[in-house]
Amino acid sequence: MLVFENDYSEGAHQKVLERLLETNMEQLPGYGADHYCESAGEKIREACGCPEAEVCFLTGGTQTNQIVIGAVLKPYEGVIAAETGHVSTHEAGAIECSGHKVLELPQEEGKISADNLSDFLNSFYEDENHEHMVFPGMVYISHPTEYGTLYTKGELAELSAVCAQYGIPLYMDGARLGYGLAAEGTDVTLKDVAEYCDIFYIGGTKAGALCGEALVFTKENIPPHFMTMVKQRGALLAKGRLLGVQFDALFTDDLYYKISRNAIVTAGRLKQILKDKGYKFYIDSPTNQIFVILDNGKLEQLKKEVVFSFWEKKDEDHTVVRFATSWATRMEDVEKLAALL
Amino acid sequence: MLVFENDYSEGAHQKVLERLLETNMEQLPGYGADHYCESAGEKIREACGCPEAEVCFLTGGTQTNQIVIGAVLKPYEGVIAAETGHVSTHEAGAIECSGHKVLELPQEEGKISADNLSDFLNSFYEDENHEHMVFPGMVYISHPTEYGTLYTKGELAELSAVCAQYGIPLYMDGARLGYGLAAEGTDVTLKDVAEYCDIFYIGGTKAGALCGEALVFTKENIPPHFMTMVKQRGALLAKGRLLGVQFDALFTDDLYYKISRNAIVTAGRLKQILKDKGYKFYIDSPTNQIFVILDNGKLEQLKKEVVFSFWEKKDEDHTVVRFATSWATRMEDVEKLAALL
Amino acid sequence: MLVFENDYSEGAHQKVLERLLETNMEQLPGYGADHYCESAGEKIREACGCPEAEVCFLTGGTQTNQIVIGAVLKPYEGVIAAETGHVSTHEAGAIECSGHKVLELPQEEGKISADNLSDFLNSFYEDENHEHMVFPGMVYISHPTEYGTLYTKGELAELSAVCAQYGIPLYMDGARLGYGLAAEGTDVTLKDVAEYCDIFYIGGTKAGALCGEALVFTKENIPPHFMTMVKQRGALLAKGRLLGVQFDALFTDDLYYKISRNAIVTAGRLKQILKDKGYKFYIDSPTNQIFVILDNGKLEQLKKEVVFSFWEKKDEDHTVVRFATSWATRMEDVEKLAALL
Amino acid sequence: MLVFENDYSEGAHQKVLERLLETNMEQLPGYGADHYCESAGEKIREACGCPEAEVCFLTGGTQTNQIVIGAVLKPYEGVIAAETGHVSTHEAGAIECSGHKVLELPQEEGKISADNLSDFLNSFYEDENHEHMVFPGMVYISHPTEYGTLYTKGELAELSAVCAQYGIPLYMDGARLGYGLAAEGTDVTLKDVAEYCDIFYIGGTKAGALCGEALVFTKENIPPHFMTMVKQRGALLAKGRLLGVQFDALFTDDLYYKISRNAIVTAGRLKQILKDKGYKFYIDSPTNQIFVILDNGKLEQLKKEVVFSFWEKKDEDHTVVRFATSWATRMEDVEKLAALL
Repeated sequence: MLVFENDYSEGAHQKVLERLLETNMEQLPGYGADHYCESAGEKIREACGCPEAEVCFLTGGTQTNQIVIGAVLKPYEGVIAAETGHVSTHEAGAIECSGHKVLELPQEEGKISADNLSDFLNSFYEDENHEHMVFPGMVYISHPTEYGTLYTKGELAELSAVCAQYGIPLYMDGARLGYGLAAEGTDVTLKDVAEYCDIFYIGGTKAGALCGEALVFTKENIPPHFMTMVKQRGALLAKGRLLGVQFDALFTDDLYYKISRNAIVTAGRLKQILKDKGYKFYIDSPTNQIFVILDNGKLEQLKKEVVFSFWEKKDEDHTVVRFATSWATRMEDVEKLAALL
Repeated sequence: MLVFENDYSEGAHQKVLERLLETNMEQLPGYGADHYCESAGEKIREACGCPEAEVCFLTGGTQTNQIVIGAVLKPYEGVIAAETGHVSTHEAGAIECSGHKVLELPQEEGKISADNLSDFLNSFYEDENHEHMVFPGMVYISHPTEYGTLYTKGELAELSAVCAQYGIPLYMDGARLGYGLAAEGTDVTLKDVAEYCDIFYIGGTKAGALCGEALVFTKENIPPHFMTMVKQRGALLAKGRLLGVQFDALFTDDLYYKISRNAIVTAGRLKQILKDKGYKFYIDSPTNQIFVILDNGKLEQLKKEVVFSFWEKKDEDHTVVRFATSWATRMEDVEKLAALL
Repeated sequence: MLVFENDYSEGAHQKVLERLLETNMEQLPGYGADHYCESAGEKIREACGCPEAEVCFLTGGTQTNQIVIGAVLKPYEGVIAAETGHVSTHEAGAIECSGHKVLELPQEEGKISADNLSDFLNSFYEDENHEHMVFPGMVYISHPTEYGTLYTKGELAELSAVCAQYGIPLYMDGARLGYGLAAEGTDVTLKDVAEYCDIFYIGGTKAGALCGEALVFTKENIPPHFMTMVKQRGALLAKGRLLGVQFDALFTDDLYYKISRNAIVTAGRLKQILKDKGYKFYIDSPTNQIFVILDNGKLEQLKKEVVFSFWEKKDEDHTVVRFATSWATRMEDVEKLAALL
Repeated sequence: MLVFENDYSEGAHQKVLERLLETNMEQLPGYGADHYCESAGEKIREACGCPEAEVCFLTGGTQTNQIVIGAVLKPYEGVIAAETGHVSTHEAGAIECSGHKVLELPQEEGKISADNLSDFLNSFYEDENHEHMVFPGMVYISHPTEYGTLYTKGELAELSAVCAQYGIPLYMDGARLGYGLAAEGTDVTLKDVAEYCDIFYIGGTKAGALCGEALVFTKENIPPHFMTMVKQRGALLAKGRLLGVQFDALFTDDLYYKISRNAIVTAGRLKQILKDKGYKFYIDSPTNQIFVILDNGKLEQLKKEVVFSFWEKKDEDHTVVRFATSWATRMEDVEKLAALL
């Protein structure tokens, strides 16, 4: 079978694994106090151009979202997100489970606009009953979005400005940040992300690590006793090294960027093939997720030889599906897929 | 000032207060174990035509919604509600605070349709990723809705059937149930409510009581140790008699229906006046809430002599406002308002 | 039957009820914005000698404890309390339900000591692993305690000093505060309570009200958006007047003190009778709860004519029981009980 | 430096790491649906002698405790544990954070007794006020305990019988289960654990894995939609293979037992040395944790060359410290330590 199901089908990138091997028998302190976590943090600070940033490592994306949102929000606050945001839809209620509402905004191609955000915030405070409502306490965006789309630098600046105006932090879910940074035509760098976002994370699970996300607080804004809250949420690894070593490897010699680039190149080739063969796209994604409309006959035929994701029913005869590439995708597999399309 | 601001501006109906006075020095057991709670429960069972119903008394509507939803749902479940439902908008996140998501459906005049509900449930279970999503575990409706509108008996039957098909309870927020039952032209009786809803409450706070809602489980479906969960949520009154005595009075000699009827009659008169004077309605409500579109000049002028509620901005020059009548509204005040309109 | 079961067997004091009657048809704004709440707050501020205090009204004791503790603590904090404290034992886990641990201290006659508190706090911060533990974020005491005992002014000053040293608030559960203030020999006044406690509540439910507790923040320390958190916990009464009017009556002409005094006088008489007849006390309570050791034969005999509370098994042949007096206890009933003892 | 600080100082056992390497580029489904998770589960079922057991993999111990307890308990229930249990003390309030109280029992050498448990449960149900209290819904034990001690088979059978009598599950925290099973003189096998416990987990983090705990439901008692609750708690790894592969390796050719044995052998040698040199033990632990009383002079001297854990102050001149061995401890390091003692 050809596998284009998602971007977490393989283990870790070879260099990441090698570092785990090399460092395996070193005796290190637990809970993230080891020097690999420190070193990885330092490299990330440098890559972000943000020397005062605080960097923590967590295991997965939903966990990171849940802990950040729960630790930053006051009890009477909720988090604003696109109605298609991961926190809105595919985290099994992790945010609500920790007591907070997701305040959903309309989206376009997975993104929210500064105008909609501004209107929402303005309307909230103008509503005479707003003390009976959930206060907006944070803005969540994903970049790339759940549809593989990207904010521009200008859009990030605008969202950031609205957040600043209302005194609430802008938080970016970067589960696939590597693929966003490596995309063709994007004008957003990691330094921009660090400038415009108060908090964000750099996804490892989907970009070369066995597991792990690097959480960055950019404005000296890490909540007091954050580590205790991580522990309380069951997310503090005894062997914090597992995360530190991996991110240390990913941020050595630009590995994170280089391997992310592979996903973009293979996705680019696949998109060209699809376009050439006349397939229609559901959305135009510049990153590693490709959303295509298949007629159901073709879909059934492909399923025999390729693993990909059902996305949604388009109409009686057509279905939206997703092909995902990753750091590990081999161009030869793309060509094999091309032959089947 | 003339007050048409809401339906909780006065204290309790005279007869309710009298019963509190008469019974005041009786020495009674605490926590709802007194004979007035028992008697009120029995009268409600009879009024519902539901001899096996279990009846509890709580203090307010948001409290009741929070406790019912929290006690009935499993941790992985959320509650389906109209996007305009009270639990979706004006409970300051009470449902999320207890760990559950409100799964919002589109609404028409404050109501959800059986078709939309059925589609939502069907789509959920067809979604291959639904184990990563919040399971629908209950359906919440309000009757009257937040817009004063009413479900028909047929609509309740349909919603109930969809719920039964998916094995989830139908819960009705009856904060203003009295006004719904007393409305002109409704074909829904309290017995119908008890038949179609698995759980509902009969609002006292807005219909003649100082405070209090009578919660009814109609299908031998009260969650085990419900009283302990009420206590745990800070909602168990030491002097449970306060609620029992009031509902005992309200369900003696049809008092609840009779006093609710006053709200309907006075609202009817007010609607006729508004119509005659050429005012436009934002929505056609058959109960005690009247939503009118005022031009802003008129609005400012009226505000000097009448208290009413801002609802929403219609356009630059017009505003939607709400006039509410209640069990306590005097027809002479309606006529005074007429003179000002 | 003679009823000495608890201090919430009757309704409200006559004067409280009268005020509810007199004000019943006034049209007032909801949610505590009425002038009775304002007036009651003003009277309480004056009685406390604390002009900057902020006063809110809630419905019951467990509710108040849950909301105060939940609103004040950070997610990583717990509340220190005596192992016999109401929050530790008889609130069905209300504190844990809102996410916080009760950190139990040993007690003597229901009280915690400043020494034990200081040791606990000192040990916590000296423990190298304390970042993996629940941080102490508040101290809860009850006055009178669950055993009817009282702190002295000196003890309150000491506890307050330890709290100040560690920067955490001292919170007093005053469910029976009236009986504490009215006790013989106490040197603690309401002004002292307001001076030494950062937060406390004045219990109405057990001292003359139908329901209601007056919550006082004494140090300009009410948490931001407290009202929204009250709403979120289902505790915001639409008819806030119900609480405002009652406390306005209780704090007019020293009514709260005068009626509390009745409980002390009748309890004093009952204690004298018990002592004279040779009964042994389980604990020496200066307030309205009397804990007596009965032999089981006597207990069974008394139960036929008197309602009182089982407290605990003493040994095979003896049981600790509680007699409670209240604002409503009639001396003639005490004398009737005397005849039976 | 010699490191005897804990049992998670190194990475993973060589064979575990090799399996991760060998399987790294296999394309596998996510979220634990891969065949390594299946295979590991099968091997664990077999090792437990429990063919109907359900096995899940989680990342860490606190996470596992939090999720199991939160998923199994009803909202009105708490978990019974020794006052020294990990859930009682060193999980930063993870259990309370998910809404449940830890009901603490006295302990002896870290263990609870069936008698104390039975008394507690009996007293609870005999207490007339128990509906106002937290219901006991589960019993938590750790084996080895936090003091390295072990239950006997007879003790487990007794605890299990008490639990069965009251209809509540017995849950074992097996963070160090390997070291318990490999201890000298224990009569408890993994099959016994599976027989007497309703739920338990087999710790990987402290016994040869990079991270990971294998959670076992032995009585067809996995809560419905457990996976969704794992997701909701942020604990569902996208690359579930990371856990499956490791446990598959640990349960191949008895690796888990063999490597656990190393900790016992090295700890045994260390204990002998300590005994020979006249050191006093704080507690007599048969597993890999050794609690020794050091005079403070010796302690300061040792700290220059050895890393070990502060446990608690014994008196002004003495301190309890812990030396821990593990699967990775080298006998030569023990001998080096001997020379320093």
